[in-house]
Amino acid sequence: MTDLNELLDTDPVVVTAGADLLADAVAQQGAAVQRTDWRPPVPGTEDALARIAAAGRITAANRTALDRLLAVRPFLVDIGVAQDTIPGMTERTFLHAGPPLEWADASGPMRGALIGAMMYEGLAATAGEAEAIVARGEIELSPCHHHHAVGPMAGVTSPSMPVAILHDDSGDGISYSTLNEGLGKVLRYGAFAPEVIDRLRWMEAVLGPVLGAVLRSRGPIDLQSLIAQALQMGDDGHNRNRAVTSLFLREIGSALIDGADAPVAQRRAVFDFINGNDHFMLNLVMAAGKLGSDAASGIEASSLVTVMARNGTDFGIRLSGTGDRWFIAPAPSVEGLYLGSYTEADASPDIGDSTITETVGLGGFAMGAAPAIVGFVGGTAAGAVRRTLAMYEITLGEHPSYQVPMLEFRGTPVGIDATRVVRTEVRPQINTGIAGKVPGTGMVGAGLVEAPMECFVQAVNALAATLP
Amino acid sequence: MTDLNELLDTDPVVVTAGADLLADAVAQQGAAVQRTDWRPPVPGTEDALARIAAAGRITAANRTALDRLLAVRPFLVDIGVAQDTIPGMTERTFLHAGPPLEWADASGPMRGALIGAMMYEGLAATAGEAEAIVARGEIELSPCHHHHAVGPMAGVTSPSMPVAILHDDSGDGISYSTLNEGLGKVLRYGAFAPEVIDRLRWMEAVLGPVLGAVLRSRGPIDLQSLIAQALQMGDDGHNRNRAVTSLFLREIGSALIDGADAPVAQRRAVFDFINGNDHFMLNLVMAAGKLGSDAASGIEASSLVTVMARNGTDFGIRLSGTGDRWFIAPAPSVEGLYLGSYTEADASPDIGDSTITETVGLGGFAMGAAPAIVGFVGGTAAGAVRRTLAMYEITLGEHPSYQVPMLEFRGTPVGIDATRVVRTEVRPQINTGIAGKVPGTGMVGAGLVEAPMECFVQAVNALAATLP
Repeated sequence: MTDLNELLDTDPVVVTAGADLLADAVAQQGAAVQRTDWRPPVPGTEDALARIAAAGRITAANRTALDRLLAVRPFLVDIGVAQDTIPGMTERTFLHAGPPLEWADASGPMRGALIGAMMYEGLAATAGEAEAIVARGEIELSPCHHHHAVGPMAGVTSPSMPVAILHDDSGDGISYSTLNEGLGKVLRYGAFAPEVIDRLRWMEAVLGPVLGAVLRSRGPIDLQSLIAQALQMGDDGHNRNRAVTSLFLREIGSALIDGADAPVAQRRAVFDFINGNDHFMLNLVMAAGKLGSDAASGIEASSLVTVMARNGTDFGIRLSGTGDRWFIAPAPSVEGLYLGSYTEADASPDIGDSTITETVGLGGFAMGAAPAIVGFVGGTAAGAVRRTLAMYEITLGEHPSYQVPMLEFRGTPVGIDATRVVRTEVRPQINTGIAGKVPGTGMVGAGLVEAPMECFVQAVNALAATLP
Repeated sequence: MTDLNELLDTDPVVVTAGADLLADAVAQQGAAVQRTDWRPPVPGTEDALARIAAAGRITAANRTALDRLLAVRPFLVDIGVAQDTIPGMTERTFLHAGPPLEWADASGPMRGALIGAMMYEGLAATAGEAEAIVARGEIELSPCHHHHAVGPMAGVTSPSMPVAILHDDSGDGISYSTLNEGLGKVLRYGAFAPEVIDRLRWMEAVLGPVLGAVLRSRGPIDLQSLIAQALQMGDDGHNRNRAVTSLFLREIGSALIDGADAPVAQRRAVFDFINGNDHFMLNLVMAAGKLGSDAASGIEASSLVTVMARNGTDFGIRLSGTGDRWFIAPAPSVEGLYLGSYTEADASPDIGDSTITETVGLGGFAMGAAPAIVGFVGGTAAGAVRRTLAMYEITLGEHPSYQVPMLEFRGTPVGIDATRVVRTEVRPQINTGIAGKVPGTGMVGAGLVEAPMECFVQAVNALAATLP
């Protein structure tokens, strides 16, 4: 402590908080001013924040939620068929990304992906036939997140698709995801050309069964270990998955050589397919995140964000303390780099469950580990580090396994606290692919976006309403 | 340009260069001083530098040498047997790392590796027998670098060992290296226990032939492409080769599944061996560097450093403009992290041809791309970036393919200019493994070291002597 007498011997420095009026007045009198960037919370949250604070339960609740999120140990155990594997799915269920959605409100890429999935299932031969099936109410749309599942971009998961099955080795959680198709003209970006459907059929006939056989022959794969290593190799776990895909191929290579009860041509085709797709592991990283998300949900009074997800129309979030409720705002536009001759005019709004990565300390929250990602999503390497640094402002902890080497191995910021988001006005940073807005187009680019503040305002008010 | 009158309106700032005497005197008179860190060149080089400058040929010569170094396109084409493949090698030739060496002067790890290689060749059953063979003059020691070859640590390459064969796809260069054994108790660190010899025999019987068959079945592998990608994935190409080893396994995986005329158990064993050794690609990155080194050598008046190499006793360098001459100083000690209970007291001085990586813009010159390397060699991530930044002071260019993402994809510093080293007193930064000083020990750690200034002083004087 500085002695009081010493203070009187030196010039005073005035520390000001918030609006600049006071600071300006002090500065005009020639005094030194140390301005801080405090600002009042987002309008419409003051009462809720006061109620949450008064209840006095948030700190312990968030600690519990974060501990549960961090305790999961995701292992890839097997590959199944969606309708036989995912709870609550029937032969007429089509899962999709983001919060609940009606066909009438669906974006171009979501419609394209659903049309393609109906073609793949043999229900429709044309887009018109597919729309007629929907109009007759013959299929049921349901969010992946309602079934312990996640899907990138449109996230469409139809009954016959092969799905990865993940177990939490430290608990009893299970999660699911489709397998990644690659980039460009693919179903999840809304494409449904014959090549897209043919690829999905090959994935059902070969990729799923061979990968399943490999997993049964070699045993489950520790995904957290692979992701942690990949962050030391320039991945972020969302739009840069080149290292983790390489490490996955190292995990399965010797079983593919050995046999795994599959013909050599199929085993080689599986290796070549994954080797040709540096985004292959995205879906599995997402499903690993879903285990953490599910484990952290349902803790009363907790403001931890368990889900951020977009269906192409709406952006929705969930909090641990408000359980299964969605808090929704319009899906924002993405600022990004465009492929070939595509421009912003071709882009559909933000879409996909892949923001599960950002809720578990990856993606936009881990970009400081992945400077080379800026060649794909735009921006600068220094900016990627700044994005990660900003996320420490709104998170509850630092990940014990996922580290940023360039920040001297500091753990990634993890556990978004909705109350901090509305207090600081710092919004979660997301990196993402961009789908073409016309159904059937496919991928048009990739870029950066921030979660809409309105979701967090609603969520904080709803959380406050659960408290006395 | 600032108007002269404006200069007179402002307080003068004195810029001082070199010794602090003038700066201190000016500062004592209350004037602002901008000190620069210029200093005179290393004593004993002033006349040589003046003569080199007066000759007026160095800039063009260095441009030619650097262009040739950067023009090579290293491809791994095949695996051969050393004595049948490497020019100038006979059934009694044992190649070693660094400049020429007599047995009497050899360090512990070099003796250990030569003893082990004689056991492996079936010439000796004990260390004593091996020493007797040397004493009778029955084997010939020769530097790898005299045979278009490079070897890490002791670098011992004996007649029966399998060796990688690299071609320069843009010229006619060929280079060679042994295959990497892994870490710990391995020949190149001076170990010669039975497990070491058994592993070498397996490499001769299985690893070499299967890899050769794979290369013949799939075609040559573009190593520069793999190394460039690996630098975007946290490798430096010297002591962090995890990404490039992963990418190499991706290159050979489908041929290993397909057959490549080898039994499945051997193919699986080859995959597992490389998968178990994240340093596997070191030797191939070194051989790729040797192609650049050879291409750049022999340009009259060029001060570009073509070779830095250590035999465990001496550290030697070569310049392009002085051809095959070595300039030698005692090998320095390495500052590093030690394995298990080993300490500095167990360490042998700096050893190995692996500093070829630093001469071609990798290793210590690319550490800014590899922050996670500090877990292996010590230091901080910020320090790794500073080391790379310092190397731009002594290099002639920036590598067009090898980039540092964190420096906004700036090319790595490449082409060490010996005249800049003696002018700036900035010494080349090297990261390296550390061998135990007692023959037979193996690896004891890894760390950081700088090339000895004395080599550069000799080299600059010798270069000057070649000029009129």
